[in-house]
Amino acid sequence: MAKLKVRLYVDHPLGAGQSVPLGRGQAHYLFSVMRLGPGAELLIFNGCEGEFLARVARAGKRSGELVCRHRTRPLQVPPDLWLLFAPIRKARTDFIVEKATELGAARIVPVQTAFTNAGRIRRERLQAHAIEAAEQCGGTFVPEVTELQDLGHLLDGWPAGRGLMFCDEDLAGGGEDAPKEDALKDAVPGPWAILIGPEGGFAPAERARIRALPQARAVSLGPRILRADTAAVAAMTLWQLRLGDWRCGEGG
Amino acid sequence: MAKLKVRLYVDHPLGAGQSVPLGRGQAHYLFSVMRLGPGAELLIFNGCEGEFLARVARAGKRSGELVCRHRTRPLQVPPDLWLLFAPIRKARTDFIVEKATELGAARIVPVQTAFTNAGRIRRERLQAHAIEAAEQCGGTFVPEVTELQDLGHLLDGWPAGRGLMFCDEDLAGGGEDAPKEDALKDAVPGPWAILIGPEGGFAPAERARIRALPQARAVSLGPRILRADTAAVAAMTLWQLRLGDWRCGEGG
Repeated sequence: MAKLKVRLYVDHPLGAGQSVPLGRGQAHYLFSVMRLGPGAELLIFNGCEGEFLARVARAGKRSGELVCRHRTRPLQVPPDLWLLFAPIRKARTDFIVEKATELGAARIVPVQTAFTNAGRIRRERLQAHAIEAAEQCGGTFVPEVTELQDLGHLLDGWPAGRGLMFCDEDLAGGGEDAPKEDALKDAVPGPWAILIGPEGGFAPAERARIRALPQARAVSLGPRILRADTAAVAAMTLWQLRLGDWRCGEGG
Repeated sequence: MAKLKVRLYVDHPLGAGQSVPLGRGQAHYLFSVMRLGPGAELLIFNGCEGEFLARVARAGKRSGELVCRHRTRPLQVPPDLWLLFAPIRKARTDFIVEKATELGAARIVPVQTAFTNAGRIRRERLQAHAIEAAEQCGGTFVPEVTELQDLGHLLDGWPAGRGLMFCDEDLAGGGEDAPKEDALKDAVPGPWAILIGPEGGFAPAERARIRALPQARAVSLGPRILRADTAAVAAMTLWQLRLGDWRCGEGG
């Protein structure tokens, strides 16, 4: 159980012997909350250079300094997968960001749909949530959380080479539109995005717009109706199994 | 958007014309919280006879009465899948019960492992959580939540015909033990259980005990470390895709 070493994300270059200054919040967390003192060891990562063992060189009330020892793990970049979802309630939005980080999304994109009333999101808070999830789950990569984007604008400029796996809750329950065969059977790994519908569903015009996109594949997530947060986790699992780094022979 | 009709689980026989008495909590919920009055319509289900449209026949402060009209959906029984997990923190345990209900578990079994410190669980509260999840997600079946069971005892009497999909977080991160090929490739649909390890992992003796079971298959959930609740959702998705009712041609 000694594996539960403190892990901290730092926005600073890392390398053997590199000194890393700590801000107020980080100093408070390490020295007051986690009670580390000078000489204590922890793991740090910055999202682009892997994970390093570091030692506390100075522990102050409002600042501090770490010194990198050696690299403990290389950067592990997830597949090029975006997760697009319509944020609704705070707790479920936080949850989706946390789970998307654990399951290996490269980018998290909150989208405004016809039936979403998010208005605005607190991007910084969601980004901090992704960082915390990476800290707690041994991740070395932190997905970017973008500002809220309008789904229509996104679709207008959708990249030609990026697949769009479209999870429509209206396909659940065995509706007539439910795809009866494997919608991903001819799909190939590469840049993809998953789009999770809002709990109120998509507007008919929106749904038609998505389905008309040549890159889009409508996928059913089983015969039961799932909440949006459950659908996000299930869809990412399905994608990672079929097209991502959970495929047999990929990354264990 | 008119589909958001109130759905209520009732522990009472259902059938066209059947009268269904309401207890205090249900009367409070329907008449005070949801503000339904006499003549209002709602959907009710009892976990074994499908879903019925019902009408409020009497609305009192502490009691009430519904009358069934017609059946609106047949009972949809999920595959014979048990979810075994080690409960730790309340919020994440609640979450696992909710998600297991949505994703189609037939039985939810909290287990005591060497590294679990649950001591006891509040079974009734967890069962109420499963009922609420079924109410909100259009389910007609409610999985039974059992009392906390000792994992060792369960394994001692493990049914010969029930597969055990074993998700060990120690297999994540590409460890040497990670299965390099599809652990479910020769598995067949039928009675199964998924076992999710506690966040502290299994004790070595426990792991050996599980792996020695002929019905057990160790499955990797990708190269990243997942929290126990994420692992539960991902594992159920994987199982439903491979062996359950999300298989192509099954239930849409």
